Amino acid sequence: MKQTDVLIIGGSAAGMVAAVTGKFSWPEKKFTLVKKQKDVMVPCGIPYIFGTLDKSEQNIMPVDPTLAKSGVESIVGEVTNIDIKNKVATLADGETIQYVKLVVATGSMPVMPRWLKGGDKQNVFVIPKDKVYLDEMLQKIQQCNKIVVIGAGFIGVEFSDELSKRGKEVTLVEKLPHILGMAFDVELSDKIQSLLTARGVNVIAGNGILEVLGDDHVEGVKLENGETIAADAVILSMGYRPNTELAKKSGIFIDEDNFIAVDEYMRTHEPDVFAIGDCAQKRDFITRKRVSTMLASTACAEARIAGMNLFNLHVVKTFSGTIAIYSTAIGETGFGTAGVTEARAREEGIETLTGLFEGIDRHPGNLPDTHKQTVKLISAAQSGVIIGGEVIGGLSAGELTNVIGLIVENKMTVNSLLTSQIGTHPCLTASPAAYPLMKAAEIIAGKMRNS
Amino acid sequence: MKQTDVLIIGGSAAGMVAAVTGKFSWPEKKFTLVKKQKDVMVPCGIPYIFGTLDKSEQNIMPVDPTLAKSGVESIVGEVTNIDIKNKVATLADGETIQYVKLVVATGSMPVMPRWLKGGDKQNVFVIPKDKVYLDEMLQKIQQCNKIVVIGAGFIGVEFSDELSKRGKEVTLVEKLPHILGMAFDVELSDKIQSLLTARGVNVIAGNGILEVLGDDHVEGVKLENGETIAADAVILSMGYRPNTELAKKSGIFIDEDNFIAVDEYMRTHEPDVFAIGDCAQKRDFITRKRVSTMLASTACAEARIAGMNLFNLHVVKTFSGTIAIYSTAIGETGFGTAGVTEARAREEGIETLTGLFEGIDRHPGNLPDTHKQTVKLISAAQSGVIIGGEVIGGLSAGELTNVIGLIVENKMTVNSLLTSQIGTHPCLTASPAAYPLMKAAEIIAGKMRNS
Repeated sequence: MKQTDVLIIGGSAAGMVAAVTGKFSWPEKKFTLVKKQKDVMVPCGIPYIFGTLDKSEQNIMPVDPTLAKSGVESIVGEVTNIDIKNKVATLADGETIQYVKLVVATGSMPVMPRWLKGGDKQNVFVIPKDKVYLDEMLQKIQQCNKIVVIGAGFIGVEFSDELSKRGKEVTLVEKLPHILGMAFDVELSDKIQSLLTARGVNVIAGNGILEVLGDDHVEGVKLENGETIAADAVILSMGYRPNTELAKKSGIFIDEDNFIAVDEYMRTHEPDVFAIGDCAQKRDFITRKRVSTMLASTACAEARIAGMNLFNLHVVKTFSGTIAIYSTAIGETGFGTAGVTEARAREEGIETLTGLFEGIDRHPGNLPDTHKQTVKLISAAQSGVIIGGEVIGGLSAGELTNVIGLIVENKMTVNSLLTSQIGTHPCLTASPAAYPLMKAAEIIAGKMRNS
Repeated sequence: MKQTDVLIIGGSAAGMVAAVTGKFSWPEKKFTLVKKQKDVMVPCGIPYIFGTLDKSEQNIMPVDPTLAKSGVESIVGEVTNIDIKNKVATLADGETIQYVKLVVATGSMPVMPRWLKGGDKQNVFVIPKDKVYLDEMLQKIQQCNKIVVIGAGFIGVEFSDELSKRGKEVTLVEKLPHILGMAFDVELSDKIQSLLTARGVNVIAGNGILEVLGDDHVEGVKLENGETIAADAVILSMGYRPNTELAKKSGIFIDEDNFIAVDEYMRTHEPDVFAIGDCAQKRDFITRKRVSTMLASTACAEARIAGMNLFNLHVVKTFSGTIAIYSTAIGETGFGTAGVTEARAREEGIETLTGLFEGIDRHPGNLPDTHKQTVKLISAAQSGVIIGGEVIGGLSAGELTNVIGLIVENKMTVNSLLTSQIGTHPCLTASPAAYPLMKAAEIIAGKMRNS
């Protein structure tokens, strides 16, 4: 039987970061990581295989070199059983590994709704993080012309834009009234929808899929309102569910939404067993409710915390809930969101004040590559604590979203933001006199004064 | 005599923001702003007039429309006298203005060293924020071929790069051993120097100017080591001094470095008189010592605080010292710095631990427009509080510098940073598994464990 101090199951972002951070924190311990496939995809890079990048080989996460450099052993294999009591994992090929600490990072699987009639036809795809599947999918998609993407979250939006770059006729279908409706308020999601439409994607919102049409092969889709759309392929981007079968059958406690229950140190209910990433329970930073937001960046933060706390607790290092910091780009326009939207806050019964400011991301605006920059900030009405923000701008919107993320994480108030310092430069940012975060905060301050 | 509630002297970033924020906070009060010239330059945009932009008209700050929209009266004129006791300002044309509160935002003037022999020759220029001067300078510079820039702070570096874009032969001379030596540690300033050299600027560091050579016109410069450089023009970018003559002769207390002394509400020693921006005393956020860092972004933060506190004190809104957040770009490479450098910390007797990480600003690195991204973090050795950071990367380095600025402002520790969440996207940021801030923080955490 193989022996290790720490066994990590799963080789995507969470598993890799937990292994590296863990080994860095406990260099005398032996770390072993088991992953199903040799080549691991950069999860957020998958849509780009279908447009900007040529093939999946260009989207491989450097897991093995990173692990080797850190001194972590990497095994390709599938763990099929965990004997929690005796601390032994068994691989599909019969190999057994004795561990001291176990980290479950088995990730998530795309949702394939059972109710969807015709979902088993050829050329109906989901988007797993699986190179073999994606390679075959890419080959088939290249033969198709008309493609329908179902579900306009970030991945659906990115797939639609990338396929459209490759000259495909793309229709993006979203059941909710607005695309990206969970991440952005209407003022911003409307802008993003216009942008996508201008780039040639046919967007249908407020209408869900009812059925995939065709004999063996996809010929089209039928929507809830009866409309049909001709299609050579259908891509279902309807969310992900935690991959927790192994944990469940091993007796690790799973919550009612199928996530592995964890505490703020990422510990499961079993001693010496941690869970991180998409398979681990998530709690919202603001509302403190359980949520199903799955993000590689959250997974990495959880992985660092598990890694640092494997053998004893560093009591200051806990995970305080998912802030849900997302960003993406359509062409030269970047956009992002952190914390809760105004709509979400309303659903949760949080009274808010908001500020929306439209400026530019260079100063003076005569400089080349100047883009419009729109920022919306959402604050709790009483305390003035900033609980969310959304941005559309040039490509710096990604890091600007991280500025907002840190504001939310530090529970900064509108007043503290107004007296903060921000660095600005003509070719890199908005003007110091019209920096959009400050202007949005000023608008909230005005409403606070008048309320 | 004209009457106003608030009189603001100075129409650049500080004056404008104080007027707008003040009027927004106290809408029932009358605000009047006096500025010397009708057209105000975007201060940080000035170097770009000499390259990327065609003329100064493309670098005008929209002061008048902004003031008009806010309901602030704007007057072109020069205040020549302030009667502090009777609260009356007199303009050069004899007009008098009675005020209730006064905000002095008279800015700064370029240093023209008296010891510099030949500094009065034709085609020796300084860089004032003065459209008339800059227009004449631009016209003359256009006739020149060989240009020597003295002083390699941000403005000197930007001027050199812009002039070189226009095909000029540029030599940049810096007395200190490294360019941008006050803002960056050697690991990073070396990279920036190589970049500038690769773009055709001749950089001479560790050597100061001794004399400007020529008869009436510039023919060259002589350096401290005796070397001479032929030149048609010399641009002195040797810093700025506070423009406080008016304040001084009006009896407002000026400190030994010629700044107007202010407290954390930006109040001078005279009742009802505020001072903000380059003319107002600055204190470093980390060292708490007086410093002479002049930044438009700091000026705007001070202006917001003065504006909000004009008629009564909002006790939570004070200015807590200059974090000195700078950023700039050379071509497609952006770089920035916030807080103190390691070298500066050493001079101040602060024990530090640092982490330097080199990664990329996209993921996977096969995506177009991927740039190297280098981050250095500086923390206090005992507490782990992050006191500074430096970055070189793509154009998102500007907002990434603001992420570092907020980390410093919130006095975050290495541990709290390691457990923070950061949003990432293939086309906008580094990977979540190798986000450079986190990796740099991890390196410091490793040193803390081993120390």
